[in-house]
Amino acid sequence: MSEEQCIEREDRFDIDETVYRNFNIKNKINIWHDIFNCSQAQVGDTLLILNQRIDTPFVVFKRLWEARPIHVCADGATNRLYEYLQEQQKFHELSGDVIREKYLPDFIVGDLDSITDDVRQYYSERGVVILEQHSQYATDFTKCLKLILLNANSKTFNNFLQNKKQEENLGIDSSHGLLDMCDDLRQHHTVLPHRVNVLALGAIGGRFDQTINSITELYNARRDNPEMTLTFLTDTDIIMLVASGGTSIEYSNPPLLPTNKVFRDYVLGNCGLLPIGEEVIVSQTYGLKWDVINWPSSIRSGRVSSNNRFASRDKCYIESDRDIVMNIEYYPDKLAEYVSM
Amino acid sequence: MSEEQCIEREDRFDIDETVYRNFNIKNKINIWHDIFNCSQAQVGDTLLILNQRIDTPFVVFKRLWEARPIHVCADGATNRLYEYLQEQQKFHELSGDVIREKYLPDFIVGDLDSITDDVRQYYSERGVVILEQHSQYATDFTKCLKLILLNANSKTFNNFLQNKKQEENLGIDSSHGLLDMCDDLRQHHTVLPHRVNVLALGAIGGRFDQTINSITELYNARRDNPEMTLTFLTDTDIIMLVASGGTSIEYSNPPLLPTNKVFRDYVLGNCGLLPIGEEVIVSQTYGLKWDVINWPSSIRSGRVSSNNRFASRDKCYIESDRDIVMNIEYYPDKLAEYVSM
Repeated sequence: MSEEQCIEREDRFDIDETVYRNFNIKNKINIWHDIFNCSQAQVGDTLLILNQRIDTPFVVFKRLWEARPIHVCADGATNRLYEYLQEQQKFHELSGDVIREKYLPDFIVGDLDSITDDVRQYYSERGVVILEQHSQYATDFTKCLKLILLNANSKTFNNFLQNKKQEENLGIDSSHGLLDMCDDLRQHHTVLPHRVNVLALGAIGGRFDQTINSITELYNARRDNPEMTLTFLTDTDIIMLVASGGTSIEYSNPPLLPTNKVFRDYVLGNCGLLPIGEEVIVSQTYGLKWDVINWPSSIRSGRVSSNNRFASRDKCYIESDRDIVMNIEYYPDKLAEYVSM
Repeated sequence: MSEEQCIEREDRFDIDETVYRNFNIKNKINIWHDIFNCSQAQVGDTLLILNQRIDTPFVVFKRLWEARPIHVCADGATNRLYEYLQEQQKFHELSGDVIREKYLPDFIVGDLDSITDDVRQYYSERGVVILEQHSQYATDFTKCLKLILLNANSKTFNNFLQNKKQEENLGIDSSHGLLDMCDDLRQHHTVLPHRVNVLALGAIGGRFDQTINSITELYNARRDNPEMTLTFLTDTDIIMLVASGGTSIEYSNPPLLPTNKVFRDYVLGNCGLLPIGEEVIVSQTYGLKWDVINWPSSIRSGRVSSNNRFASRDKCYIESDRDIVMNIEYYPDKLAEYVSM
């Protein structure tokens, strides 16, 4: 194994393709296509809203919503959606329920101790499926992820959904019916037929144990649900778990956008490689302002790559011995402009 | 080693003192006395303000400030302090600069690329020591912690401070003078004469790599500066690194407050034991809603004690094989009432 290195790059440089070609790329992530555009959305592509105030510019919210066929609110997050859409209504000076009616979630899931009666009634009257799961052995976040997996992959669940609309809680046990159904699905399928790509709003921020719990969900999803890609969007960052092995992160300009505003320069800011949970050896990065080779990174040792950024113009390679959390800063208002173009 | 256990307790119970007495308590933390009151403040007790919007109720901010002799702003945090005090001015309908003049920091430290010219001039004219350190090998947060250690412990630094007021940057090298002086201090003293207890506002929130970087500072402080206690206060949480071994966390009512509002019930909410950075074996807790014995906890495994809370009426014991991050939720508005009593 070659020695540990840290290399400072030019602020912008062109990748040497002959080097890049030789990397063992197992995963590709394209920030524009996978997160903000999703022009080829799959059946399991989901926007999940968790219980934090929504502050996303409306044009971005609209894009995130419309790019995905499934929309899920975790319990109290439904109040947040309701309030957010009310604010947009005022802001855009439209009358009546126009905006709110356009953004009805497909599912509301959780122990339902936070959703208000009014909000619950509003969505219930409009046919939104509201599923109570009051098991104390899972968080509302976990329950939502199970629901998303079931909805995309379980015939049993879809039978309940189609045939038992009139029954209380669709006839599903309100304590841990979803959890049991998910265990059952796993026992019968080692690989599920449909991938689910979940973009979650509101996972980070607020109480700190909830923030860390959300990070735990990134690891849980990777370990327990190989068919799931879970990404967080906060008001400042895209947060994901970069898989061990080699990953190419791409951020070149969308081909059809006639703009002289370069996506990477205009929309993206700093980034960090964050070994939350355990030491990670970052074997190689190529494309960052501070690239590293064979770099042991851990929070305990204080060796963490924060305040870093993409320096290559269009893509960046990351290889590590274990999964590592990555945050990529973005500017919501700039993104809003970009999305509106 | 006895088997792993998780024990659900009553919502409120009285500790069995005969059990508690036998614990090997190496550290004691009293939430009221150490964080909100500090009636016996030491020379190194410091309020450190980092660059996030300040949202603390003013009566709480006042208490945190007045309970500590030293006040430090990291670069752009000075703008936040300036703005916050301006808002308070409006809110309390006082005229002129009264409030702002009362809360002048002792030091402003950092690479000084974020503090605005107006704000810099305002504090400079009022004799605040502004120290530029533009080294790229440390964050503004780290530079502030070095300054705090030096101010409490270094004769060299205090000589600069007393004798070189007129000189640019006190005559201290503006690139890494503080860092060098701190290395020098360490080389000459294995143990520093004065402890420093730092309460930092604005460490958590905003860009996620900065949040994790702040958590890294908790570990750095513990490793490199045994004389330092570093605690974060956010709008929702108290966050600290509970040392390996046995710690008693106390939260009984302050003795002299004539109130029927119990501090634990009125001010404190949930808590979490968060093994950020590495697996931790929580050997024993006693006093939580969900106590554990010999419980391996890690983010990768998903076994993290979040959504927990103090169930014992006045104190709680935590013992682990390694340092573990703890967050304790508090209610700022309730605390404001409590502080005002």
